[in-house]
This record gives sequence, structure tokens and C-alpha cells, in this order.
Amino acid sequence: MVKEVALGIDIGGTTTTFGIVDHQGNILADSKIMTHAKEHVTRFLPRLYEALNTLINDCPSPILLKGAGIGAPNGNYLRGTVEKPANLRWGDETPLAELISKEFGVPTVLTNDANAAALGEMRYGATKGMKNFLMITLGTGLGSGLVVDGKLVYGHTGFAGELGHMNVKEEGREGPFGLKGSLEAYVSVTGIRRTVSKMLADSAADSQLRDISYNQLTGEMITDAALKGDKIALAAFDYTGQFLGKALATAILFLSPEAIVLFGGLANAKDLIFQPTLKHMDTYMHPVFKGSVKLMLSELQHKNAAVLGSAALIWEELDKRSA
Amino acid sequence: MVKEVALGIDIGGTTTTFGIVDHQGNILADSKIMTHAKEHVTRFLPRLYEALNTLINDCPSPILLKGAGIGAPNGNYLRGTVEKPANLRWGDETPLAELISKEFGVPTVLTNDANAAALGEMRYGATKGMKNFLMITLGTGLGSGLVVDGKLVYGHTGFAGELGHMNVKEEGREGPFGLKGSLEAYVSVTGIRRTVSKMLADSAADSQLRDISYNQLTGEMITDAALKGDKIALAAFDYTGQFLGKALATAILFLSPEAIVLFGGLANAKDLIFQPTLKHMDTYMHPVFKGSVKLMLSELQHKNAAVLGSAALIWEELDKRSA
Repeated sequence: MVKEVALGIDIGGTTTTFGIVDHQGNILADSKIMTHAKEHVTRFLPRLYEALNTLINDCPSPILLKGAGIGAPNGNYLRGTVEKPANLRWGDETPLAELISKEFGVPTVLTNDANAAALGEMRYGATKGMKNFLMITLGTGLGSGLVVDGKLVYGHTGFAGELGHMNVKEEGREGPFGLKGSLEAYVSVTGIRRTVSKMLADSAADSQLRDISYNQLTGEMITDAALKGDKIALAAFDYTGQFLGKALATAILFLSPEAIVLFGGLANAKDLIFQPTLKHMDTYMHPVFKGSVKLMLSELQHKNAAVLGSAALIWEELDKRSA
Repeated sequence: MVKEVALGIDIGGTTTTFGIVDHQGNILADSKIMTHAKEHVTRFLPRLYEALNTLINDCPSPILLKGAGIGAPNGNYLRGTVEKPANLRWGDETPLAELISKEFGVPTVLTNDANAAALGEMRYGATKGMKNFLMITLGTGLGSGLVVDGKLVYGHTGFAGELGHMNVKEEGREGPFGLKGSLEAYVSVTGIRRTVSKMLADSAADSQLRDISYNQLTGEMITDAALKGDKIALAAFDYTGQFLGKALATAILFLSPEAIVLFGGLANAKDLIFQPTLKHMDTYMHPVFKGSVKLMLSELQHKNAAVLGSAALIWEELDKRSA
């Protein structure tokens, strides 16, 4: 029997992953290509088309392609464009949804990776059946996807839900565009690395992290040290959780979600990040919301979440059209 | 000809106003009764019913009542209840929507006053035709209503959009529930009064406000002084705008609205509050949103906004049901 499927495509700063996904979230086949920061989009696209065509042609079972979903940095859902992505030399604007749609002859929808992750979680993960929740992705930066009344929030510009840029500290750490004290400068892999650096300066405690350079330091190394009781690493997680908890208390005032889902490398540290976050969330939470919000770990952490999320994006769209 | 109308009821801390409103937002008749903080709801309601029945019976033209909308402090749309209102001795929970519905035999919907104001603005005011905007009401406290994709955001609990309680200053001014540094402790009539008090202490400048006690001081007095060039009053507006501007920059990251509408006494100070707010909003705004948001004054300032908003609530509902 021919199976109806969607292409899920996730364009990352170093890797682009893609897969063939059915309506139930089964990945029939997947693959990836490198994304080169300096490669122009006109050279990148033919490589992507070729890899996608190979994937489709080599798919083990007979399929009918119904659509494609794309998660991309600075992806604008409303316009279908990738606009000035920070880590790619793609120029001001690439009409990627239209290009992919033409190439494969199917409806194509695009958004940013955190929004795609939120939809993936809603269809296939921890927030199945929920109408109001937030997705927070903790990677190099902090991404977020807001779901209100069962739908992603895009806002007037298509760029709603950029919580990583909210100010959490007066005259705080430097970030891009001259903005200081943004959440992601504290809460992200980069953020906790900066925090370790600060703790190494402020504290006199011994630490296995004193032997690792700033650039070599990874989230896994900090987690590993914390699990062994390293004081610097533990203090760094606590400090990270303070900022995350406070920011989430604000997010709850805005949207009163049923759950907040954490995704990405830092989220794997589980209690190390969950406990201080919950504590500070509670400190700043208005009583009317107490007990109303679950803080959860993504259920797609060890699956191909990026591909599932991108595929979920187009399935949502196709379901809406046929409703 | 018999006109289809709705009851709009706004329950305030000192006054309850209500009116008969047609689909186009014409107020056919309106009236009010006092709200006594210490009066129990079982005594208040018979007075309200009587006043509403008088209004309906005395209405100059023939009408057909289609529904009732209620704006009330701590009004929960999802449950139709007023829950622990701060300034009324109503107890834990009053099922007000159900009570009014039974009394008048029409569908009745309830929400808080800021949400009702947002709907009023969307149907009859400055944001006609807009799908994404925020309403900020600056009164004794700071209320807000968030409209996403043409609908009010209620969230999982029904209490979404409580921006007045967001933390804007570490170890800042005391507020209820042990929360410190909340937005409304700075941005509201109470907030600017506190700020004047601080400025009178910090500054050595002469000011006409030095002759007025804290409790006597009103928003109008501060506006009046500022318009005459009073340095303390001007500094107080600037300080207020700093906090409002920064909070709105965060709100824009969340929801990317097309407009933010200011309503209430403080908003009437116009440039005095708009200019510092815009300046600080810009300082904290991520470039992707620059130029995308209009800061507007409510167009219902001098109309019976509370009644129009409450009526808009039920018209929205009835339109949805018949759609």
C-alpha cells in the first residue's frame, strides 16, 4: 500500500537533517548533509535537492509525498522566507518554502526550529492534546515556541516567541545588536559556559573545569562535573536556573501555559537544571498560577526531533486545510 | 423596529457601570450603582438586578436582549467566575456569569476588565481589523489584555495576560503576596505616585507636588504639574516610561503585536508617558521587530469604554456561535 508521507527538513548551522515522515510520526528514512556557514544558498540548494531526491527514490516502501515542512534559523512562517540567518551567508532573504515547493511539487511550510520543535512535541511528544504550552530549546542560544489555543503564535511579523532576547539583567552580559543582559546570554550552552568562566573567577574552589579552555568547554563537560559534585559546575547550574526560573515566571503571566517543555543538551542535565529553575519560578510566580504549570523534559530528546518537528509543521497545515 | 442588544456590565472597585449596547457599539442607555467594598455579593446582586431591570424597562426604543457580557476583577472567562477579587469581599468564588444568565435568560460571558477593554477596542476603537495587539490599562493597577490571531489569550487557567505582575526590578518595590519589583508598582497611578514620593526624597528641586500628601496625590495632579514644567513630575513620568518601555519590549518578543494600546488616566498624559516609553522600548527592542509596532492611545478613552468592552465580549461570543 502506498503511504502518504511528508518531508521534514531542519536546516542547522552545521548540519541539515531531513527525513520522510508519515502522519503518525514514523520516520521511514532519514539522512543529512553538512551546512557550510560560508556557502551561498545558490550552491547549497542543489546539494539539498539532490540529497532529498536520493532519499525519496531510495525509500524502502512505496510513498506518496503530500508536503514538506522546514525548520530554519530566522524562518518566517508568514512569508515562507529565511531572513538574515545569523550563522549562514544566505543574504537578506531566501524564499525557501516557495523554492522547495516548486522543486518537489507539494505544499511547503517553513518556520524557525524552536517553533517546529513545539509542533513536533504537540503531535508526537510530551504535550499531546495540550492547547497551551511553551517549548524552550537550550542549545547554542535559547529558542522558544509558544502554543496558544492549539496554535503556534506567529504575531504580526511572523517572529513572535523570541524569548531568548528578553532582558533579564540590567547592564548584563553583552549580546548581539548592542543588547545587554538577554536571557540567552545566561540560559543556553553558551550562557552556562560564560557562567562557569565567571564562577572560576569569583570562587576559589577547586574544579575539574579549571583545566579546560573556554572554547573547549561543552555543556556535557559541565553536566559531568556537576554530577560528580564539582562546586563550580553546581553553582553554574544554580545560577542558570535562577534566570530561567524568573523568565518562565514572566512567561506564565503572559500565557498561562499548562506545561513548559525543555529541550536540548542542557535539558538533559535534568534535576541539575530543573530544580533551581522550579525554585526560582516559584519565587517570582503570582499565586493565581501556582500549581498550574508542569515543567517537563521533551519526549523527543533522543529521537530525530528536528525532522519530526519540521514534518509536524506541514501535517498541521494539511490537516487544517482538509478540516 | 425591535433592536437586538446586549447588556454590558463592568464591575469596578467603587462603581459598577452597565449599559444596553447594539451590535454597532451604540449605547442606547446606561447607568451605574455604587460597589461597596464590604458589601457581600448576596446583597450586591439584588441591587444590580433591580438596576439592570430598570434600565431595560426604561429603554427608550424597543429591544430584544441577546446576551450579557461582564468585566470584573479576577474574572475567569473559562469558568465564568469571579475568584478572590482583591478589593471586594465576595469570598473565594462567585459564579457570576451563571447567575446573570439565569436572571435575564440570556447567554452570559465574563472576563476581567482589561480583557473586556481589549475586545471593546477591537470592535469599536483603535484596533479595528487588527489580529494581534496588546491592551494596557493604567489605573490603580496595571491590567492587560492580549489578542493573538484575533482572539483573547486566556491560557490554561483563564488568567493569562497578567503583565502587571511581571518582575521588572530585582529587590524592587513591595507588592502583594510578597512579590517585589512588579511592573504595576512602577507603572500605574499608584506606581507614579510612589515614584513622585521617591523623587521628592532624591531631588532637591522645587515642586508644587511638595504641598500634596501621598494619599491626596492623583494622576491628574502629576500630569498637570508636568505640563507646567515641574521637574519632579517630569522626572516621574520619565521613570515610569523607562519601566513601561522595557516591559513592552519583552511583550513584543513574546507576541509581536501590530499595536500596543494604552488606556486609562495615565495614558491621557500622552507625550509625557508616550515619549519615554517609546525611547526605552526602542533601547531594549530586538532589531527584527523595529518599526513593526504602533504605540497608540485608546479611542474609547472618552466613551463608556467599560460598558462597550463588556458588551463586545458577548457580541464576540454570539458572532462565534452563529459563524
